[in-house]
Amino acid sequence: MLCVYTGNGKGKTTAAMGQIVRALGRGLRVCLIQLFKGKEFYGEQKIICKLKGLDFYSFAPKHPFCFPAVKKATVKAQCDKALLSFKDALKAKKHYDLIVLEEFNIALRDGYLRYSDLSKILDIADKDTYIMITGRGAPAQLIRSSDLVTEMKEIKHPFNKGIKAKKGIEY
Amino acid sequence: MLCVYTGNGKGKTTAAMGQIVRALGRGLRVCLIQLFKGKEFYGEQKIICKLKGLDFYSFAPKHPFCFPAVKKATVKAQCDKALLSFKDALKAKKHYDLIVLEEFNIALRDGYLRYSDLSKILDIADKDTYIMITGRGAPAQLIRSSDLVTEMKEIKHPFNKGIKAKKGIEY
Repeated sequence: MLCVYTGNGKGKTTAAMGQIVRALGRGLRVCLIQLFKGKEFYGEQKIICKLKGLDFYSFAPKHPFCFPAVKKATVKAQCDKALLSFKDALKAKKHYDLIVLEEFNIALRDGYLRYSDLSKILDIADKDTYIMITGRGAPAQLIRSSDLVTEMKEIKHPFNKGIKAKKGIEY
Repeated sequence: MLCVYTGNGKGKTTAAMGQIVRALGRGLRVCLIQLFKGKEFYGEQKIICKLKGLDFYSFAPKHPFCFPAVKKATVKAQCDKALLSFKDALKAKKHYDLIVLEEFNIALRDGYLRYSDLSKILDIADKDTYIMITGRGAPAQLIRSSDLVTEMKEIKHPFNKGIKAKKGIEY
């Protein structure tokens, strides 16, 4: 089962985090593979990392859009590692019930991952494994091949009025 | 700060739950007031109820749409209690940083709560308190008076193909 959260509105990452907590609450085995976020950057990571049943991997913590000094080749190599980590998760003996690929849409959109490479790995996934991919800019091919797609559509956002991100709310 | 998650797509409740976990991870004080859900129904409740810093209230566990035997007057009385509980939370000495009103949009849509009554209580809220209201069918008046609105828009959903809700994923 392939699920995609995309769109420009607030709620994609928090929805994925809420999904992880829900699954862990039911005793499911969960793997989170995250791109473009430092391991300590988000408030929820202080809690979910301590929960039993979650394996957490983080790659390419710095996106060149926010950190222009970061080399694109470095980011690409990190994204390739993340993809390999996803392949390993699908083949893991412990059989994950839920695998969350956080911000992989961004990597696809910005050319750090190719859809054809991701697609080949998705093909080996067990039908019972729930795979969730988040991030703005999900490519049309991914949307076509997904079972569930929600667009988090921004109707209003206070950032547009110049209000700054708040600790514990936005990160 | 008033934030609304509405729309017919998957992700509203999980986004609110992820938001709660994020806020608690930063040591914020959180109050969750929930409608139309039994206290034990959702997987995430097994985890979030144990987290330090969250006060959790649940009212009107049965919506007449799913439980036709439930009297509408009973539901209305429970929704009124939930609204009072929200008012109490705003006035509480501990000063909550985040108050989540889960499925209150449904209560407004179905006439169990009046927007004018909710609005009067919202008026007394401190500007620093982040209030999040979730559920399908947010009324236009609420959207107008909110600072942040995301529409979780269903692009695709497997229920439409007859696939059933899965424990740990949908609840």
